[in-house]
Formats: sequence, C-alpha cells, structure tokens
Amino acid sequence: MVIKVQAAINTHNDKSLKRHREKVELTKNLLELNDGDFERIIDSIKSFQTAIPSWALGTGGTRFGRFPKGGEPRNLEEKIEDVSLIHQLTQASDSISLHIPWDIPKNPASLKKLLQDNGLKIDAVNSNTFQDQSDQKHSYKFGSLCHTDKAVRQQAIDHNIEVVEHGVALGSTMLSVWLSDGSNFPGHHNFRGAYQRTQESLQAIYKVMPASWTMLVEYKPYEPNFYSMVIPDWGTSLKLSEACGDRAHVLVDLGHHLPNTNIEQIVARLLYFGRLGGFHFNGSQYGDDDLTTGAIKPYQLFLIFHELVQGAIDKSIKNPAVAYMIDASHNVKDPLEDLMQSLENIRTSYAKALLVDSALLNKAQRENDVAGAEQIFQKAFQSDVRPLLAEARLRAGGSLDPIDFFRSAKVRDTLIEQRGKQTVATGL
Amino acid sequence: MVIKVQAAINTHNDKSLKRHREKVELTKNLLELNDGDFERIIDSIKSFQTAIPSWALGTGGTRFGRFPKGGEPRNLEEKIEDVSLIHQLTQASDSISLHIPWDIPKNPASLKKLLQDNGLKIDAVNSNTFQDQSDQKHSYKFGSLCHTDKAVRQQAIDHNIEVVEHGVALGSTMLSVWLSDGSNFPGHHNFRGAYQRTQESLQAIYKVMPASWTMLVEYKPYEPNFYSMVIPDWGTSLKLSEACGDRAHVLVDLGHHLPNTNIEQIVARLLYFGRLGGFHFNGSQYGDDDLTTGAIKPYQLFLIFHELVQGAIDKSIKNPAVAYMIDASHNVKDPLEDLMQSLENIRTSYAKALLVDSALLNKAQRENDVAGAEQIFQKAFQSDVRPLLAEARLRAGGSLDPIDFFRSAKVRDTLIEQRGKQTVATGL
Amino acid sequence: MVIKVQAAINTHNDKSLKRHREKVELTKNLLELNDGDFERIIDSIKSFQTAIPSWALGTGGTRFGRFPKGGEPRNLEEKIEDVSLIHQLTQASDSISLHIPWDIPKNPASLKKLLQDNGLKIDAVNSNTFQDQSDQKHSYKFGSLCHTDKAVRQQAIDHNIEVVEHGVALGSTMLSVWLSDGSNFPGHHNFRGAYQRTQESLQAIYKVMPASWTMLVEYKPYEPNFYSMVIPDWGTSLKLSEACGDRAHVLVDLGHHLPNTNIEQIVARLLYFGRLGGFHFNGSQYGDDDLTTGAIKPYQLFLIFHELVQGAIDKSIKNPAVAYMIDASHNVKDPLEDLMQSLENIRTSYAKALLVDSALLNKAQRENDVAGAEQIFQKAFQSDVRPLLAEARLRAGGSLDPIDFFRSAKVRDTLIEQRGKQTVATGL
Amino acid sequence: MVIKVQAAINTHNDKSLKRHREKVELTKNLLELNDGDFERIIDSIKSFQTAIPSWALGTGGTRFGRFPKGGEPRNLEEKIEDVSLIHQLTQASDSISLHIPWDIPKNPASLKKLLQDNGLKIDAVNSNTFQDQSDQKHSYKFGSLCHTDKAVRQQAIDHNIEVVEHGVALGSTMLSVWLSDGSNFPGHHNFRGAYQRTQESLQAIYKVMPASWTMLVEYKPYEPNFYSMVIPDWGTSLKLSEACGDRAHVLVDLGHHLPNTNIEQIVARLLYFGRLGGFHFNGSQYGDDDLTTGAIKPYQLFLIFHELVQGAIDKSIKNPAVAYMIDASHNVKDPLEDLMQSLENIRTSYAKALLVDSALLNKAQRENDVAGAEQIFQKAFQSDVRPLLAEARLRAGGSLDPIDFFRSAKVRDTLIEQRGKQTVATGL
Repeated sequence: MVIKVQAAINTHNDKSLKRHREKVELTKNLLELNDGDFERIIDSIKSFQTAIPSWALGTGGTRFGRFPKGGEPRNLEEKIEDVSLIHQLTQASDSISLHIPWDIPKNPASLKKLLQDNGLKIDAVNSNTFQDQSDQKHSYKFGSLCHTDKAVRQQAIDHNIEVVEHGVALGSTMLSVWLSDGSNFPGHHNFRGAYQRTQESLQAIYKVMPASWTMLVEYKPYEPNFYSMVIPDWGTSLKLSEACGDRAHVLVDLGHHLPNTNIEQIVARLLYFGRLGGFHFNGSQYGDDDLTTGAIKPYQLFLIFHELVQGAIDKSIKNPAVAYMIDASHNVKDPLEDLMQSLENIRTSYAKALLVDSALLNKAQRENDVAGAEQIFQKAFQSDVRPLLAEARLRAGGSLDPIDFFRSAKVRDTLIEQRGKQTVATGL
Repeated sequence: MVIKVQAAINTHNDKSLKRHREKVELTKNLLELNDGDFERIIDSIKSFQTAIPSWALGTGGTRFGRFPKGGEPRNLEEKIEDVSLIHQLTQASDSISLHIPWDIPKNPASLKKLLQDNGLKIDAVNSNTFQDQSDQKHSYKFGSLCHTDKAVRQQAIDHNIEVVEHGVALGSTMLSVWLSDGSNFPGHHNFRGAYQRTQESLQAIYKVMPASWTMLVEYKPYEPNFYSMVIPDWGTSLKLSEACGDRAHVLVDLGHHLPNTNIEQIVARLLYFGRLGGFHFNGSQYGDDDLTTGAIKPYQLFLIFHELVQGAIDKSIKNPAVAYMIDASHNVKDPLEDLMQSLENIRTSYAKALLVDSALLNKAQRENDVAGAEQIFQKAFQSDVRPLLAEARLRAGGSLDPIDFFRSAKVRDTLIEQRGKQTVATGL
Repeated sequence: MVIKVQAAINTHNDKSLKRHREKVELTKNLLELNDGDFERIIDSIKSFQTAIPSWALGTGGTRFGRFPKGGEPRNLEEKIEDVSLIHQLTQASDSISLHIPWDIPKNPASLKKLLQDNGLKIDAVNSNTFQDQSDQKHSYKFGSLCHTDKAVRQQAIDHNIEVVEHGVALGSTMLSVWLSDGSNFPGHHNFRGAYQRTQESLQAIYKVMPASWTMLVEYKPYEPNFYSMVIPDWGTSLKLSEACGDRAHVLVDLGHHLPNTNIEQIVARLLYFGRLGGFHFNGSQYGDDDLTTGAIKPYQLFLIFHELVQGAIDKSIKNPAVAYMIDASHNVKDPLEDLMQSLENIRTSYAKALLVDSALLNKAQRENDVAGAEQIFQKAFQSDVRPLLAEARLRAGGSLDPIDFFRSAKVRDTLIEQRGKQTVATGL
Repeated sequence: MVIKVQAAINTHNDKSLKRHREKVELTKNLLELNDGDFERIIDSIKSFQTAIPSWALGTGGTRFGRFPKGGEPRNLEEKIEDVSLIHQLTQASDSISLHIPWDIPKNPASLKKLLQDNGLKIDAVNSNTFQDQSDQKHSYKFGSLCHTDKAVRQQAIDHNIEVVEHGVALGSTMLSVWLSDGSNFPGHHNFRGAYQRTQESLQAIYKVMPASWTMLVEYKPYEPNFYSMVIPDWGTSLKLSEACGDRAHVLVDLGHHLPNTNIEQIVARLLYFGRLGGFHFNGSQYGDDDLTTGAIKPYQLFLIFHELVQGAIDKSIKNPAVAYMIDASHNVKDPLEDLMQSLENIRTSYAKALLVDSALLNKAQRENDVAGAEQIFQKAFQSDVRPLLAEARLRAGGSLDPIDFFRSAKVRDTLIEQRGKQTVATGL
C-alpha cells in the first residue's frame, strides 16, 4: 500500500516556506533572471524526470560483502511504494524501470493501476542474461547472446522477447540490453565470432519487438569480465544499433568508461548520429563504482547536461527523446536517501546547463575565444541553483527538503517496522 | 582423505618421458647452460614454493553472479586435500594460507598432522574484517580498525588476535592484514583520524603478536570502497609498518594498483627499505581482476621476479624472506587448473629471471647502455624454460604435465561425484 | 618598467561597483553569514596568495608544437612586470618563483628592490637538471642526481647549491627540486641503486642549505621518462625527505598522479606526517596536462582545499606553512588570462572550503552519517562565492573583474607593441 | 650516398654461422616443426615488412628537452641512407613513409631512383596540420580540418591535397591523416560542429585522391590537446571513414588508447568491418610514450598479431592489406638501434602468432575450454623464435645479429664523422 504523504510534506514545508521564498528572490536577483526566464527554467526543472530502477531500492553490495539496513521492499509492490514515496518528495522520478526476472509482474493489469494511481509510469524493461536462474536450462557462464552454442543464444533471445512481452503488458516501449558477455582470458573468445553472434542475436530480438519499441544497447569496458567485453565501448554499441535498425540506440552509463574518458564528447557524438537512446546515471571515481550521481565529478555531469540541453535546443539534431535512469548501488547510504541525492544532483546539473548563455558561447566558440568560452561555462556552473530546484519541487507538490523530511519523519524506522530488519530486495 | 597420486603420476609421466629428456637436452644446448648452471637453476626452481589460500579452491564470482562447477571442497580438510593434490602434481605449492573465520580449525593438532602427512605447511593466517559474521556484535559496515567507535575497533583488534592464536596453534608465524576500510563518498572520512585510528589498532595487534611473528600490511587503492581506502598504496603500508615495529612489513598484491603503476619499482623500493613482507600473485588487465597470474602481463611478472631474484642475491639488501601466495578468483576456469596455471607462470617468470646475466646487466646499467641492458632482459625473457620447469617437477616427484594429468585422470568428475554438484566452498 | 594600473582599475571598478555591492549583500544573505563570519572569510580570502613561476608568463607548448601570441616577457624584469600586473589586478599573487638557469638574476640587489617596489616577494627557487645547457660539461641525458657517474651527480649537486645561493641573494628560503631522472626501458635502471644515489645527492644539497631553508621534493609518475621515474610518488618523496632532515618536505603537483588517484587523501596523509611542503596548482584530465587550475575537476580542488583548511585549523597538525604556486602551461590561452583564471579558481575553492561547517562535519563523521557528511560538503561547494572573491579583491585594491579589465584595456596589444610579436620567454 | 654493407654483413655472419645453424636445428626440433611448416614460417617472416617513417631517424625528445647524439641525417637522402642500412641489416623494412612538409622531395624522379636502387619503396605520405610552418598564412593553433574558420580548413585541405600530389610523384598510394585538432578546455569546442567540419574536410580531400589511393584516419585520445580530441577513438575514425567512402580506413597507433584498453579486440573489430587500414607500432606504459615496440607489453603485441594473422587466414574477412609502420620517438637510445629492436620485436610477435594452432584454438573456443584456449596461446608465446628470425634474415641477405653488427662496425661513429655532432634531423 502506497502511503500518501502530501499533507505531511505541506506541514514540513511550512516551517521553511518563508525563508525559501526569500532565497528564491535572492537567487533570481543574483542570477539576473527576468520573470520569463525564471518561469521557463522552473518549468524545465519541473518536467525533468528520471526513472528509478526496481533493483536500486535495497542496499547494494560488492563481491566482498553487503551490509543491509532493513526495511527493504520485499516485492514489486513495495518497490513501487518506495518509488512513489521518492516521487512524492522530489517530484523528480515519475517512472520505474523493471528488471526481469527479478520483478516479473504477476498481475500486469493491477500493477498498471497501482502505478497509475500513484502518478507513475513504466520506464524501460531490462533483461538479465548475466546470471543463471535456478530454473534455467542452459548456463550463461560463458556468455548469452554471444555464446558459441546456438541453444544458449536462443534461450537468451527468448528471454529478451519474454521481457518485451512483460513490458508490453505494462505499457513500456523500451528494452534495455546490457550484456556481461565477454572473456576473462586471452584465447577464450574469437572476437569476430563473438561480435557476429551478438549482432545476429540482437537482430533476432529487434525483429520481433513491436514497431513502437526502442532497443537500448548498453556498453561497458570491463566487469564482470576482465579481459574483454563483447560490447566495450560506444563504437561497438553504435555499430550494433545500426545493424539492427532505426529504433536501436546507444545507452550511456556514466560508470562504464575507461579512466579519463571524455564522456560529454561521446554524448555529443551520439546526438550527432541521432543514436543517443538512454542514460544510466551514477557517480564514479575508479570504474563502475555505482555511487551517487554527481558525488565525485559534478562539473563533468554539468558538461554532459550541457550537451543534452543543446541536443534538445539545436534543431539540426535528429535524436529521439533520451531515457534517463539512475543506476547506482547503495552500499553504505540509505537507498532512498541516496536516490534523492542523485535526483537532486541530476537536476542541479540540468538547471546549471539551462543557465549557459548559448548565443554568447557560440560566438566565443566561433572566434576561438578559449578563456571566454570557459568563463561562460564557469558562470553557469558556479551559480547556486538550489533555491530554483526547491521552487520547482514546491510547485509540483514536493518537499522543500526531501532528505530532511525523510529523516525527521523517521521513514526508514517505519519501513523497518513494517517490512522487517532482515529483508532483502529481490535481485540483491 | 587425501588421495595419493604418485603412482598415477609416474604412469602418466612415462608416456612423455623420452620426449621430455630430449627437450631438456635441446633447451640446455640452446640456452648454453653448463652442467653446474643447469643444476643450480633446476634446484632453484624446485625450491620455489607458493602458498595456496584456502579460499581459492572453489569457483569465485563477481557482484553480478557466480557460476560454480561442482566438486568444491566442503570443509577445511577437503581444502587441504585439494592443495595436496595440486602439490603432488606441481611440487610447487607446499603450504596453505588460512582465512579466519571461513576456516577455523576445530582440531588444530589433527590438522597439523594432516598437513604434515601431506608434506604441507601452514602459511600466513588472514583476518577478515570486511564482512559481518552472523554472530558478530558490531558491524564493519563503516570500517573496522579505522572505525570511529572504539568498541568496533576493539572487536576488530580482538578478532585479529584470535586469528593469531589460531595461527600459533597450527604453527604459522605470519598475520596478513587486508583492510577494506575506507569511504565511498567525500566527507565520510576524516582522513587523518581514520589513519591514526588504524595505526593505533595495528599497533595494538602487533604488541600482542608472538616475537617470532611477522605482520603483513596489504594495500589496495579501491574496492570495496570507491572513494578512499585507508591503506591505498605502498607508502601508507610502509609508514604503518614502521609505526608498528621491525616485524611489520608490506604485502604487495599484483592487482592492487592504479592503472599503469610500475610495480617492479615498488618491489625494489620495499627491498631497499627491508620491508617487503609478502606477495599476492594474480593477473590483471583493469583493477583487482584476480585472474590467473601471468595471464595478462607476463613480461611485467618477469621484471618483478628480476627484482626478487636480485633481492636474494644482493648482499646489501637486508630483507626478510618474502612470503609468496596466489590470491586469485577462479570465476570461469576450473579452480584447480587455474591454480596450476598460475604456479606454472610464476615459476616460468622466476626461471627466466634466473637466466638474467647480472654481471653484464650491471655493466650496461653503469654505462647507461639502454639498448644493451634491455637486450639482456629480452634474452632471458625470450628463452623457453618450460622443459626446465618440467624437469624440476619430475625430480621432485611431480607431473610432467599437471593439467593434462588432471584432465585425463578426470579429477574434477571424481570430486563432483564425491562432494556433489552444488557444493560451495566456505567463504564464497 | 612596471606599469601601475591602480587608477585605471578604480575607473574600471566604478562601472560595476553598485551592482557588486548588491551582489555582496545578496550573497551574504543567501549564505546566512553574520558580519563576523563575513569579515573573517573576506580576510582569509584576501590573505590567500599564490606564487607565479617565472616560466609561466609565456605561451607554453607540447612536443608537437607551440603557438605563441606575442608580447611575451623577454627577460626577468619583464616577467616581474607581468606578475606585478596580475597582482595589481587580482591581489592574489604576491610572489614569483624563479627557475635557474632560465632566470639567473644579474643584479640581485636591484632585482630585490624591483620586487619590493611592486609589493612582490621571492618564492621558491627551482633547479633544472632535466635539460642540458650549452655550457654544461656533463649531460643529463641519463639522469642527474641519480646518475651512475659520480661526476654528473656532482655537477647536478653543484647546480642545486648554486641555485640556493641565487635564492639567498634574493631572500628566498626554499629550494624546489623536481627530478626528471628515470628510465624509458626495463633494464636501464638498477632501481635500488638509482634511489640510493638520489638520496645521497639530496642529502649533500640539504647539508649545505642555510638552516632557515626548506627543501621541497616533488614527485611525478611519468614524463619525460616513460618506464620509471626515480621519484614517482608521495611515498618516495616522503622517504627521501625523511632521509634528509626536518626541513625537507614533499611537494604535491596536482598533475603528477596516476589516473584516478585520490589526491586529497595524499594531502591529508602528508599533513598528518607534518611533511606537506608545497603545492603546484594546475588542472588535468589525463596526466600532467598543465591546464588552468580547476578547469577540469573543481570539486576535487575543493576537497583538497578542505584538507588544507583543516590542516590550518586543527591544532594537532604540526605542518609548516605550505608554499602555493601555479605550475601550468598556457598553450592556447593568453598566459596572463590563464593565470588570472587559475587564481580565481584557487580562491573559489578556498572560499568554499572556508564555508564547510567543521563542527557539523565532525559530528557526521563520528556517527558515520555518510549522506549527511556529504551534504555538508555539497552545501559549501554549491554556494556561489564569486561576490566574496570580488569583495576581497576590491578591498585590497584589485579589480572587480580582472579579465574584463585586461581585455578592455587591451593589455596584450600594448605588450605586443612594446615587446614584439615574435618574442619567446626564456625557458620556452 | 647509400653504403652497401653486404660484404661486411657476410663476414660478420661467418663468425656465428655454425652456431646459428645448430640453434635453428635445436629450435626446429623443440618446436616440432616439419620441413614444410618450417619453410612456410621462414617465408612468412621473410616477407613481413614494416615501414620506417622519415622522422624516426633522429633523436626524439619531449617538451622538457632533447639529447641528440649526433650523426643524424641532414636531409631526405640521408634518411633514405639510414633506412637502407637498417634494411640491409634486418631485411625487415623495405619502405619509408614520408612526412610533408618536413621531407618535401625536391626531385621526385631521382628520389624514386634512389629508393629503387636500394630496394626500397615509398609507404604512406603523412600530412602535418599540427604545427605552423613559417610561410603559412593561417595558424593551426585552434585546429585545422575542424577549424571554425573556413579559410583555415581550406588551407589544411589544400595541404593534404599537396601531400597526395607529392605521394603520387613518388609512387605512394596512401595518405595518413593524423589530426591534433581538439580542445584544452570545456567550452572551446562545439563537439558536434567540430565533428561535422572535420568530416566535410576529410570528404573534400578524399574526393580528389586518385582512385587507387587509400586514406588512413588515425585516432588518439589526448595530446597535444588535453580536454578533447576531435578523433579520440576507433569509433570516430570508423564513422569518418565510412562517411568518406570505401577507401578510407582506420589507422591504429598502439600508443593512442586510454589506460587498460583491449587493443587486440579493436583490431578484430576493424577487421570484421573490413576497415583496418594501417598500424603504427610503438611501445607504451602510460600513454603515447613512443617507446620501442614490444618493450613494455610483448604479450599484448603477440595477441594483436594473432588477430592480424587470423585476419589474413580467415576467408570471411574482407579487409585490405594493412600498412605497417613504426612510429616511435628515440629519446635515449641510438635511433637506428631502437628501430632495429622494434623490427625484431615485431617479427618475434608475428612468428609466435604463426605458431598458434588455429584448429585447436577454434575447437577450444567453440567448447569454451577457457584454460585450454589460453594454453594454446601460451604454448606459442613461450616458444623461442629468435633462431627462426635470424634464419629469415640470413636467407634474405641480412645480418644474423644486426645490433652487434651496428656496434662492432662502429656505424654511429662513422655517421657522426660524416654528418657532424650537432645535426638535427628535419622535423625534430
């Protein structure tokens, strides 16, 4: 049962409302925003929504261990409860992305209604061929869509098709494919063979997807395979997408790059090719660390959002709408707090990107005024946009300070009481 | 019960003995080894032993999954069986390193006898404060020896002391400490405080260690914490070792370095300071990949062994004997085959390092003959030493081709039959 | 001749003074700063000074080329002119660091006076044993302080001593030693020998340094040697410093780390050991890119400054005053604009670090409130401190907008007119 | 004037000929090669040729300095002399790659004859838009083919066309394009604009290239630009090649990858797409270190050659012949020795790749015998093929030991005598 906290939010907001209004005025003045621009920015922030994946609502872990805190959702309905709670507070996450088979909906119709009743939508559905399920005939130990054995490939293709069917029943229109396929040692893979088989498998899935659906092809350079991954980089994702058809696109996960990669340029490239399909947000210092989005390199996140904003403004770009999702692992923070921090950081970067003076930037770029172009970015990035985010939340009915609400309302304690201390979210 | 396979090894060897002898002669001639040098090298190879850790005998995994094959040891005795089998075949792994609490010996005396009967010794004992055990009072979620709460630190200290006691009972003289302590986000750790508390905790453990004991302090730059680790690098390990006393040394794990680190120079530094305590062998392409040793960068392994060999030769170096151990995760290979490959690759690098003409190298170095010095390394590295390794194994009673023996004798099938398909080695 | 621009600065400031004052008030209100805190922060910002190196005033380049713009200083006096101009505008760079032999002062007394007349001081003096000078007897091709040939080492030692003497004459009290010594290929260096010779050479220099002097030992993992560097990391710098004596400290250059290094933790370590001697500021995406400070990872710079601020506050730390310098290469921007941007970004990070609520942070750290601790950092980092920086500059007599002044006054054009289009700053 | 050293080579060979023949027999026996396989391998080695670039014959340097040894070629004719000498000794480098404008041939006809007389061919011609020439109208400071100013782009296009014309006159059929175009700071580049302009410029060049010509598009992630490069990765090179036409291909330089990149898989991908155009060989530990090929990661080089060999064997691959070239910077070794070491290491990897049992490997791959597949690689890699290389050289008229010849014949001394101590090869 989803708890409605609107009244409690309002009460909580009341305490800081006066000061909030002052801050908004101060900020508007500092940023020299006229009413039109101010309203436009608030509206843009309000409408920027990021999906929450069903597997991110419990405590994550590493191969070395996992330290759950309790109160984790025990089933899909409770996961939706958690997403609803986050959305009520932040008004920034109006959809949930499902993972099959961790979250197979038993009754799609009632699930759709549950979502609808809570103002939520279904986002992409995600297949899983990186683990073996107990009832599975063939093992994915040595790969799935790339496997040398046709039977294993067919099983993986069938699984993906089944995932699409679940998605159709729920109203989704996107299939996210992340393959862990790869090799740990030189010699194991015939690189060309593995690529060709993967391409053929993806094509087989693509062919049976409904015409309204989009396939998102994710890439990752390493982990869980540590010598080669079949889809290690954007170049491979792009070529595979092109081989499938017009509705296959590249999915960028911020943690899936080699050290020092300029991710924002990759984003711009994919926009140029009209093939940027989706985004998995998270933070990283070393590799696929799956930390809170924006926790380590907030400026990089801003630079990425600059590309996304330009991608939306620039008429010459023919790219479909990008699907945004958080994909993080909440190992040491409360998962719900972690998600709310990510949502805040994502919108912070987005709002700052909205402040960039595009006309001035274009001029500086044309004239190769390097320092000047950088100043334009710095001016936007150094701006404090938190009052704008709070205002956008407030107008949508959310909390002025979601984490403070979460803590002062002792939500986690309540969840532990309801769900128990030792629960484990499916998929963890 | 440990199976003795000497007779079977002999029978298996017989089939290739003639050809082996030819190969040895051909190699001796190609490498221009006189009898004295030849015997000296064979003896050196024979005596180079690497410990097997008790946790490396089952199928490893990643946070994404695990694909066990079956026949894994179900208890400490069966782990010793596996090590014994490997040692009978390779004659290269005469000791086992224990991990507490995964392998708490219930009857130390009988365990000691079991080891002795199989020509095995106990290597270092390893503490574990990176996971919570079900009977544990305080959680290590936020650290152990570095924890801000004195009670948690004391629990971790006590655990380490208990590990030493288990080790004493079994005849070990080394405590390996690897801490996962660290932080995932800026702000969580007071870096100086965390360091000071860790130092004090290590000193407390060091103080109660028997005088004959050595403490090995391992470092690792990231994972399972992804923003900071309390002991991220050799410099920190060294300073902590110095703060403890003369019998605390640095432990180098080949996978615990940032991208592109020159590990061989670190080894040389630690030898210079007389503080190289131990080695964890494994292979890596990206991070702590825990692959087969030598699987990715065999030349680097050779260069490291060059330092180790020089460290043993050079009278000016005052370094204790270095403890060698394999620390790998066997995710896709049969664990026993994987270990035997590692042992082979380790001795290959060692044998090649023995072939380096030190006098000539010293001359080239003094004269800054860069190309000449490199040629000396290349001459040794390009040499094919596999017949020398086989000869060393043969003389010690081992197999000419351990993996071929393992496969043709269908050892894994036998183990699965005995132990079952679904076994999971403790600690995995 | 140094141009005094105070009057022009005042005129230029006048145009934006009113709006500046509004911004200061808005910011004070937004940040909820009472008068006491506000004044304390402005004072702190005002007193934070960073040295400019004499080699950073011209257009830099890479091994692939150099694209100078003209108007570069032709001698040491003109370099001082440029530093003076920057300091007049920013009031943030009250000292100059000299490089010998690029900037050997012919008349130290008059140079001292020139500096004094312009409110400037001498910072560290820097030796150069990474290039051969035309009048040099021995080559540094194969190293300097680490060289196998005693004569080369002695020449390098003598050079450093000569640098100290130049420094004494000018009133400096610090010698910065950066060694390019290393090797490009396995085999060339005997790692232990190279280290020992380097240590002995540094000790020889240290011994003759005046008692009031400090030696700063810089580290760098690679470039210009690409296999090993004799001083690749902080651990090596620290051990060498300890081997010299109490007045030898480690110098951290932000660009001198392997990918993904947590630099702020290294800073904290060195503060803990009381051995953080100096800082070279610059920005980097890949390696020693020598970009504008703060241009790529401003949050990391903030985190580093948090450690520095804590180092100054925390009574338990016994660290000498840290010497701050910019060390960048201005390849595509106007060098003076680039330096002013760096100075701004440095003070921005510093000011934000001053905003961190230490008491709250300590509490969150003690309680392992990971999300809470991070929020405290984010609150400070997200604050817009630019009006505070402008106020600090204004009070010190500087420009409200140095780069705008520089551009609107057409300073570069004037310099080109005076000094010519084809000038090359010494050392470039 | 090219010196013919055949007689001297023969005399030098005579001293070690007997032992060489023994070694060949020992090796043949150890590797169990029958006469047919042996001859096939020797023939393959003999025919594997790598081009030498005209800029690699002098001492290279870094932005920190350059330490030339003397005797460097003063003009194109002397560069050809040096290549001829290397080829006479190694019989492994039958072509020279030219760089324009460093090596503009004044008299193409006589140059062609000079090459012909020495058994040499012209390889690819290389354009240079990463430096400004003194007679150049527009500067490349802010880019060339990507420049925002049409006039600069046209100048760069015209330069490339001129390079093609020089190449036509000499009989070349390949244009190598490496662009340093990129940006050092966020904001400077409009990523999409820069890409589009680059594509249009390349298309303009491609259009006027003769129909028999191939364009090679090189990629590099960083340096000399340190924030973004317009062509940073294989994906970008591939897309640009596809946009040009069937005769545009990707050029892989071994040093042009982010840390930990699996290069061999990239090679396999490009072969799969039929777009692997060329190779620049060198060695690297950190970045574009330009060390001797095979000096740091010889196993990786072997793995790359395995792909190249498979690419030549596998009938399903439709890839044009790959152009092989060494692209290194000889900073501390004698350039000619360095090149000969590279040639030796290249052929070593090639010969080992020829030893891989493809049929067995295919079987192991199909059956996912991970350890078995790796053993097949190790068996080939551990083999000592140096006697086979010597035999291939001997049969072609080369030296059994080129570096020993070079040193004992005191070639460098002779060159210094002829050309002087202070010469600088053009382009350095």
